[in-house]
Amino acid sequence: MTVRVAVAGASGYAGGELLRLLLAHADVEIGTLTAGGNAGALLGQLQPHLLPLADRVLAETTPEQLAGHDVVFLALPHGHSAELAAQLGADTLVIDCGADHRLVDPADWQRWYGGTHAGSWPYGLPELPGARSTLRGAKRIAVPGCYPTVSSLALVPAVAAGLVEPEVVVVAVSGTSGAGKSLKPNLLGSEVMGSVSAYGVGGAHRHTPEIIQNLTAAAGEPVAVSFTPVLAPMPRGILATCSARLRPGVDAATVRETYLAAYRDEPFVHVLPEGLWPTTGAVLGSNSVQLQVTVDTDTQRVVVVAAEDNLTKGTAGGAVQSMNIALGLPETTGLSTVGVAP
Amino acid sequence: MTVRVAVAGASGYAGGELLRLLLAHADVEIGTLTAGGNAGALLGQLQPHLLPLADRVLAETTPEQLAGHDVVFLALPHGHSAELAAQLGADTLVIDCGADHRLVDPADWQRWYGGTHAGSWPYGLPELPGARSTLRGAKRIAVPGCYPTVSSLALVPAVAAGLVEPEVVVVAVSGTSGAGKSLKPNLLGSEVMGSVSAYGVGGAHRHTPEIIQNLTAAAGEPVAVSFTPVLAPMPRGILATCSARLRPGVDAATVRETYLAAYRDEPFVHVLPEGLWPTTGAVLGSNSVQLQVTVDTDTQRVVVVAAEDNLTKGTAGGAVQSMNIALGLPETTGLSTVGVAP
Amino acid sequence: MTVRVAVAGASGYAGGELLRLLLAHADVEIGTLTAGGNAGALLGQLQPHLLPLADRVLAETTPEQLAGHDVVFLALPHGHSAELAAQLGADTLVIDCGADHRLVDPADWQRWYGGTHAGSWPYGLPELPGARSTLRGAKRIAVPGCYPTVSSLALVPAVAAGLVEPEVVVVAVSGTSGAGKSLKPNLLGSEVMGSVSAYGVGGAHRHTPEIIQNLTAAAGEPVAVSFTPVLAPMPRGILATCSARLRPGVDAATVRETYLAAYRDEPFVHVLPEGLWPTTGAVLGSNSVQLQVTVDTDTQRVVVVAAEDNLTKGTAGGAVQSMNIALGLPETTGLSTVGVAP
Amino acid sequence: MTVRVAVAGASGYAGGELLRLLLAHADVEIGTLTAGGNAGALLGQLQPHLLPLADRVLAETTPEQLAGHDVVFLALPHGHSAELAAQLGADTLVIDCGADHRLVDPADWQRWYGGTHAGSWPYGLPELPGARSTLRGAKRIAVPGCYPTVSSLALVPAVAAGLVEPEVVVVAVSGTSGAGKSLKPNLLGSEVMGSVSAYGVGGAHRHTPEIIQNLTAAAGEPVAVSFTPVLAPMPRGILATCSARLRPGVDAATVRETYLAAYRDEPFVHVLPEGLWPTTGAVLGSNSVQLQVTVDTDTQRVVVVAAEDNLTKGTAGGAVQSMNIALGLPETTGLSTVGVAP
Repeated sequence: MTVRVAVAGASGYAGGELLRLLLAHADVEIGTLTAGGNAGALLGQLQPHLLPLADRVLAETTPEQLAGHDVVFLALPHGHSAELAAQLGADTLVIDCGADHRLVDPADWQRWYGGTHAGSWPYGLPELPGARSTLRGAKRIAVPGCYPTVSSLALVPAVAAGLVEPEVVVVAVSGTSGAGKSLKPNLLGSEVMGSVSAYGVGGAHRHTPEIIQNLTAAAGEPVAVSFTPVLAPMPRGILATCSARLRPGVDAATVRETYLAAYRDEPFVHVLPEGLWPTTGAVLGSNSVQLQVTVDTDTQRVVVVAAEDNLTKGTAGGAVQSMNIALGLPETTGLSTVGVAP
Repeated sequence: MTVRVAVAGASGYAGGELLRLLLAHADVEIGTLTAGGNAGALLGQLQPHLLPLADRVLAETTPEQLAGHDVVFLALPHGHSAELAAQLGADTLVIDCGADHRLVDPADWQRWYGGTHAGSWPYGLPELPGARSTLRGAKRIAVPGCYPTVSSLALVPAVAAGLVEPEVVVVAVSGTSGAGKSLKPNLLGSEVMGSVSAYGVGGAHRHTPEIIQNLTAAAGEPVAVSFTPVLAPMPRGILATCSARLRPGVDAATVRETYLAAYRDEPFVHVLPEGLWPTTGAVLGSNSVQLQVTVDTDTQRVVVVAAEDNLTKGTAGGAVQSMNIALGLPETTGLSTVGVAP
Repeated sequence: MTVRVAVAGASGYAGGELLRLLLAHADVEIGTLTAGGNAGALLGQLQPHLLPLADRVLAETTPEQLAGHDVVFLALPHGHSAELAAQLGADTLVIDCGADHRLVDPADWQRWYGGTHAGSWPYGLPELPGARSTLRGAKRIAVPGCYPTVSSLALVPAVAAGLVEPEVVVVAVSGTSGAGKSLKPNLLGSEVMGSVSAYGVGGAHRHTPEIIQNLTAAAGEPVAVSFTPVLAPMPRGILATCSARLRPGVDAATVRETYLAAYRDEPFVHVLPEGLWPTTGAVLGSNSVQLQVTVDTDTQRVVVVAAEDNLTKGTAGGAVQSMNIALGLPETTGLSTVGVAP
Repeated sequence: MTVRVAVAGASGYAGGELLRLLLAHADVEIGTLTAGGNAGALLGQLQPHLLPLADRVLAETTPEQLAGHDVVFLALPHGHSAELAAQLGADTLVIDCGADHRLVDPADWQRWYGGTHAGSWPYGLPELPGARSTLRGAKRIAVPGCYPTVSSLALVPAVAAGLVEPEVVVVAVSGTSGAGKSLKPNLLGSEVMGSVSAYGVGGAHRHTPEIIQNLTAAAGEPVAVSFTPVLAPMPRGILATCSARLRPGVDAATVRETYLAAYRDEPFVHVLPEGLWPTTGAVLGSNSVQLQVTVDTDTQRVVVVAAEDNLTKGTAGGAVQSMNIALGLPETTGLSTVGVAP
């Protein structure tokens, strides 16, 4: 079976990572590539690492250009997917890497993004409880944000099992590609190298409601999330440090067993052996999440540290994994658990 | 007045930073420089950035070599200061950048470092309530750890004023120089560049009891501290993200006013204007801490983000500041609030 | 056909990269992994990015452990391969990533490395004129050094066609992994981040005779090589800037045509379209060399800039490519031209 | 004596570095700060490292705003200085960090920058032969480019003494701040981190004619310069690797003695002891150039490697040094030879 795939937003970081993975996917034929301001350019000028596609000309991002494919990936700025997706055929599998269809509650959308809510789609985080059954055969998939992916995978086992109080603290250190190819002064190399900074502090980052949505669904009760993203001098990777108070009577062995059981059969989420802690370097370019969990007996807090590549498992890899499930392909096709290190 | 100063451990990062600052200190004459394994070498081979001292030969670290100075800085590995300090004259100002004399409670020392407790000295964090009076005229000073400096400055105003519950979460992202010039595989450039990692998770880092000691003293009640250090790909700088639950009835304006009042007259701690968040790049090489505070109204948590240079305000700058106070010099002599950016 | 492969030196950077590539190689089964000081450890503790091999125990590097494989890769420090290789079966394909068997002239070996010359093996740089025929069916292959690979590919077309005077200048900027996992102070993250340095200046680097050997063979006359390696703050990648004086009567068009013709059919060497210049980021993790060539009409010098990943095309990728040729497999099996960017 | 100083272009990197140095200059009072698009903003929002000036409001860059100062530094994009400077009083010392007044030959200006040549000013590289006498009392000074500063200091002793053939090769690896705060995709942190690239290859960089001008003047005959700039993942610093063929009969000892003699009395240029090679980290934030020279006896080439901080000695520090000379202040006032390392 060969699936014909289009990518909208091929000149950006998410689009580039999708193409990197799709080039290695045995069942995919890469069709039309589109862009906004870069339409008309050769891909080789903008994504020189995608050598086999260097001579491809970027088309305009229009429904007509995207028609005639089995799968269309949308790697567009937030707010640009909904209208376009509505014009794509109902038989086409549309996978949105943007935020437009992630939030279930229209009030959340309006508070965090503003404007009309486009509705929510099956959520492309297969490791969440029950997620695979909604993804199988789906024709519309919303890919999670990069922070919600790693934070949810780090915390869902604990909150789902009721091991911790429903009030979590997440500090997630990210590489700069999460911000996209935006020409902002604070993203210049001179600014980010040699410096670490926080942003969206105090519940101001748009990924907060998505983390709350995932944890609340898993817990069956409202979970409060204190989320702080931190920008570090590296292109890729997120390391999330997550903690919450142990519920009375829960011990460390139960916590560890819960995590081991939760991810024993997952191909892309790995609980490290005791004593090892994750590094983003070890998952760079891979679809893996590596995590470790411990209990701080002094403070009675569970602490989970989890690493992902924000562009791979956090965006494009998660998207391909969800595509595989939706199409009935083996879930790991085209995806690796091997990082590019050092 | 000219003060004659010796530095033990001049070939390490803390020793090098002390010398960088002392070279710019109007009242200091740099005397003997000592080292361990590097004794006999020229400083220029080990610290090529300290050009005016390039021809200095490193002496052995012995009481004899360190005798005859007004001030002796000890920049030695933990556990190496106590015995040496005991052999230095009672009239000499001895400033220990190591951990040996920081912890007040012998049980803390034994749990976290092991062996016999050397006792505690006046604590060189002048911005703590009451600290300056114990430092004036002191002949022995314990310089705080780099993480406790920034974490305490970030949280003391809130806990001292009773604005928050006595249970705080600190995730602090540090450059690699905090680990010293240790030849460990995980500190190699190939390992740290492009990667972020956590270590000492779950209350396992030796700076934890020192943060607890400072916050508990300020609060007047025990404060629980969940502390996670994270290693980021940069040589210098720490960004600490600190949070705690607001106590009922406290509002955001009170929090802000408390911080502004606490640091209004401090030369080296700066609460940024609202809307600006600290970066470690802006304090690189300076003795400043820049911080911002906000209240997350959804989670009712106070979040403080604070940036320091771990080698300057976090070690050598704090040491020089304390020396100035002890000797009755203007506190800011030889210290700058201007960072080296970009 | 499945080839059973052993890797000696599996805990180092070259060994790790070999395993990363071999895990993706359709015709390879990974057999014994050995190490020196790390023998007995789990690979997962030392190479956490190689998740599928995390539970492998490292064996001692002995002929007995390496026996019984179709292919043995030696990723050992220079000088450690020869004796070991002599004890491996003549039917085994032995591929040496070290320097022991690269230099043809015993006098070169003695001058640059010292001790007894082990002899030279077929040289694993398939793009050199005539190289593939010596590699086909070979049982012993010497993998080139990382600098000689990129420098030779950059300059051979010009010197082979007699376009330039036989006196070239190469300044090659490398990431730190080229120095291996050596615990040296100058390789610590704190030292390399934010700093660039030169080393082995003035013809002192051991890769110099290897570059001379390749260029001299291609030119048919002695070529003088002024080679300066520079260390840059990144884990991987080499960018070589190479230049030489144009011979009288040669024009820019001829130069460009020569390069295009030389690499038109090469799967892993790509001359970029005019106006684009290579970056190491675009070839990170790939087996590609991307290069550009121009003529500086003021100085009448040809300037070639070429980028490779020192661990992939510069070491492990070149080794796998050579293995493929030796075994009669398609040359590109298990190797990608797609970089991991950004 | 207190000198009142204005800085035009205070929101850029060169302007910021000027202010960092001027804040530490004993004889300077900082007057008006101006900007282009950032006029009206607080400096603290744009240059948070300049804490003592955080509350300064940026004025428009006009002759009126800049009037009434003893010294005006122009840190503007190339081509913006000439018209403005013409409207500043003849009694004001105007120091142009841009290119407008560097090139002596109008034909050079037209070829490399285009448009009308504004004429040339005394050239602010005091270490060049005869430069100090033209700077003393000068009212107009052109600060050299960052590449020409380090390249000229590396090569002038050799060409001035006729030790080498008049044909030099320079490959200079630079941090990103040399490109300014320009919002270009290739300067984004995600692009530059982990990657090295060449640009302006083949004699296409505008600093080439300036290097030629300096070397030709020193040599007394035309010197051909093959110059390739390389961008490395760090904010600051340039490491220049420079080489040229030894003239017949010149030996290595003569070369070394020539360099030692040339810089023996220079406060800011240091020839390192034999065996040590410069790193940009050791001069970060300082006004020093550290260099080493050797002779490659195989190729009969002199190789000089020199390191500077492009923003300090390469721009703002050189500007302040020239100001000191022009005003009759001690040349080293406000300038340090101590780097900020690691």
